Amino acid sequence: MLDLYFSPGSCALASHIALEEAGADYRAHRIDFAANEQQSLAFLKVNPKGRVPALATPMGILTESPAMLVYIAQTHPAAGLAPMDDAFAFARLQAVMSYLCSTLHVAHAHRQRGRRWADDDAALEAMRRKVPQSVGDAFAYLEDHAFEGPFVMGASYTVADPYLFTMARWMEGDGVDPARFPKIRAHREAMRARPAVRAALRAEGLAE
Amino acid sequence: MLDLYFSPGSCALASHIALEEAGADYRAHRIDFAANEQQSLAFLKVNPKGRVPALATPMGILTESPAMLVYIAQTHPAAGLAPMDDAFAFARLQAVMSYLCSTLHVAHAHRQRGRRWADDDAALEAMRRKVPQSVGDAFAYLEDHAFEGPFVMGASYTVADPYLFTMARWMEGDGVDPARFPKIRAHREAMRARPAVRAALRAEGLAE
Repeated sequence: MLDLYFSPGSCALASHIALEEAGADYRAHRIDFAANEQQSLAFLKVNPKGRVPALATPMGILTESPAMLVYIAQTHPAAGLAPMDDAFAFARLQAVMSYLCSTLHVAHAHRQRGRRWADDDAALEAMRRKVPQSVGDAFAYLEDHAFEGPFVMGASYTVADPYLFTMARWMEGDGVDPARFPKIRAHREAMRARPAVRAALRAEGLAE
Repeated sequence: MLDLYFSPGSCALASHIALEEAGADYRAHRIDFAANEQQSLAFLKVNPKGRVPALATPMGILTESPAMLVYIAQTHPAAGLAPMDDAFAFARLQAVMSYLCSTLHVAHAHRQRGRRWADDDAALEAMRRKVPQSVGDAFAYLEDHAFEGPFVMGASYTVADPYLFTMARWMEGDGVDPARFPKIRAHREAMRARPAVRAALRAEGLAE
């Protein structure tokens, strides 16, 4: 049994979808950010970073989406969610997920989480102003150089697909026009039709 | 044959050391940031992101340190640089590398690469002011929760070791006192004594 800790629509959604795609035996636990539950003593015992996602496994707790996504893939090999035995294909998958985590997600976080990197209000406002550009640039890189289609890595659905989908849902909120990225927009629509995606969205209270 | 593209002392150093530890057949190519070579047409063909590191392999080009480091480990199994066959241990390794890439490196980048996230000079200065705190907080998390010792993952040397070492070299420049982190400081000293680390530092023109 696995236990996923999530906040609705956060990057934890990627792992939530992956668990559904894998047919995993899991429970999902909502962490109430409005009540600052991520900083509660109980949750800090799960994840000392005070963030989601976290995944409690029989061996211990895992954090960080790229690590959790590959763990879900590796422990559910029948679902074929990562080419673990092909070092180059696996590295390409990992590179996309690393870019999502360290470039796209970081650019996005400057809209509402700017206090991680500056304290004064004028700086936070300056960061927010640049989000449409920095997030847009990241999607442009993905559209032009890292998206094979129909899935991120080409013919095979992998854990990169729910991870991209999760961030593509943030696009309008970040002031980026999806019409600029026809491949990613088509992917987002196709993802929304998958039963596993619908199940995870429904479980997070996100009707789409 | 592998071809590594690096700038001295950048996060490419992690892959440089890993290639040495693996006994890999590789060449290292210095990209001259002072001449803005990373934005040259020739280099943009290697890596459209205009950044290091990049690793040219017989199959194609890889980017993103966490992906490259695991690729080096997986293609040189005799070196034992990653527990690929133990899903939980591998996920823990991946989680540390994801944190280094998306939290520690990102915090560090706000000192000299703030234009990725804001345009005006006052905001850039506000970002620089916070770097000692945000980078210090990231090292505190690693010291307290993610470092087993003597190596990052415990008894086994993995690709997380050169990756942490690479960023621990930046500590003083980021205004963080290494005395706060005795385990990471001891690791940094032990790493400097390893032949593979000395060889990579020497090849990058970094005498230590």
